[in-house]
Amino acid sequence: MAFSETQVRVRYAETDQMGVVYYANYFVWFEVGRVEYLRARGISYRDMEKDDDCKIAVVDARCRYKAPARYDDLITIRTRVSRQRGALVHFAYEAVRAEDGLLLAEGETVHVCIDSQFQACPLPEKYQVLSEETA
Amino acid sequence: MAFSETQVRVRYAETDQMGVVYYANYFVWFEVGRVEYLRARGISYRDMEKDDDCKIAVVDARCRYKAPARYDDLITIRTRVSRQRGALVHFAYEAVRAEDGLLLAEGETVHVCIDSQFQACPLPEKYQVLSEETA
Amino acid sequence: MAFSETQVRVRYAETDQMGVVYYANYFVWFEVGRVEYLRARGISYRDMEKDDDCKIAVVDARCRYKAPARYDDLITIRTRVSRQRGALVHFAYEAVRAEDGLLLAEGETVHVCIDSQFQACPLPEKYQVLSEETA
Amino acid sequence: MAFSETQVRVRYAETDQMGVVYYANYFVWFEVGRVEYLRARGISYRDMEKDDDCKIAVVDARCRYKAPARYDDLITIRTRVSRQRGALVHFAYEAVRAEDGLLLAEGETVHVCIDSQFQACPLPEKYQVLSEETA
Repeated sequence: MAFSETQVRVRYAETDQMGVVYYANYFVWFEVGRVEYLRARGISYRDMEKDDDCKIAVVDARCRYKAPARYDDLITIRTRVSRQRGALVHFAYEAVRAEDGLLLAEGETVHVCIDSQFQACPLPEKYQVLSEETA
Repeated sequence: MAFSETQVRVRYAETDQMGVVYYANYFVWFEVGRVEYLRARGISYRDMEKDDDCKIAVVDARCRYKAPARYDDLITIRTRVSRQRGALVHFAYEAVRAEDGLLLAEGETVHVCIDSQFQACPLPEKYQVLSEETA
Repeated sequence: MAFSETQVRVRYAETDQMGVVYYANYFVWFEVGRVEYLRARGISYRDMEKDDDCKIAVVDARCRYKAPARYDDLITIRTRVSRQRGALVHFAYEAVRAEDGLLLAEGETVHVCIDSQFQACPLPEKYQVLSEETA
Repeated sequence: MAFSETQVRVRYAETDQMGVVYYANYFVWFEVGRVEYLRARGISYRDMEKDDDCKIAVVDARCRYKAPARYDDLITIRTRVSRQRGALVHFAYEAVRAEDGLLLAEGETVHVCIDSQFQACPLPEKYQVLSEETA
């Protein structure tokens, strides 16, 4: 199954007083992973919102934390579409420490395509690449 | 099963360009819920870290989004301990719009007690109230 | 000069690995201060955006840090309008540790009223209370 | 005067319901600028904290906003040290839209070197490169 990789470097702002990355921030990185996954397939999520009246709202998000990410670590985010049907898209992620490949966290998010009225709608035809990759 | 309630008001900083609360911020609210749950039982999480060398690290976090929270909404966070044994504590949450009781999101987090060396350790005796509430 | 007070409790998410509140978060608290200042004068900033096509965009923001805020501290945010003329509103803030009144930070922000086209516009008549308070 | 450049791409998390980047987030980008400025001069801020017991705490921060940054924009952060003497370091920043060079914001931060006891201390000898650049 095809996946994309992108990297983020841990910002001081993302740490907490435990000296590790605060848990909610992994979901921000997953968002970065999603957008870069789409970009690698020629899809600009910005244009998708603006030109196609199609937003991808989150309905479920999960993360399992394996090892702490620390300040200034370079993190590889691996993203793939694990399932796509109708209005629903499932993404899966891994956050890996770039230096040594240590798995830091795994996660999934489920999204529903909505229009500007916040109504569910099928993923526009031109984005069918997302479903093909899960075949 | 006993639960606690606390309220947060949606900050502008917590919204995104979809005009709703960004999904990662619910996990910040869950943290607020946990801390207030403990405080309502006479436990200061700050002192727990400082005086008892016991931190509660997250190993799993999940949220299911039912309806969008919006800027300036007053949100009730309902928190309970759903399970406690050994080093592990499970919390469950509901985020509800205070105005009309609409359920916005449900979530769970699983935590492991660790000492300052990041080693798992049983929940100190004095915090056993957490396990009794799940009985 | 009239001012408003509101309180925030420091969230774990707002700390960094120095064990204190990350500097950018004071600007989020200042936003909370502004909104509560307005609410205390019968003005809902949410409605101002929705019903009056008037947003208050930031053009200048400053904070001087006097002492660190720490996790779980209760912080009083004191907010006042220091100047209002035409499209411009100046706010001034103090962040004070509630427990002992220690001044943690002082700040100012300057805002310009804009309409939905991002064009500067005078503050609507009904919000003139803001200029009167600086007289 | 020597400066460094680094780039950030605007995350969805960083936007607000006005459809632009929330004002506090520029200070997070300035932090990224500082760290990359140091890295370009062979200084790891992470090691500076760990090995040299030297933290750079913020005492003053300011940002003037010229034009809004928007979702998915690629932003160039230009950072330089504008002054260094004793325990104090002044940084200056520009945030520029990479696509067309439009100036989005300008800012300054002032920092004081502190040790692990939060006491001001002179910048360690080995970091004197910071003062030389302002000569």
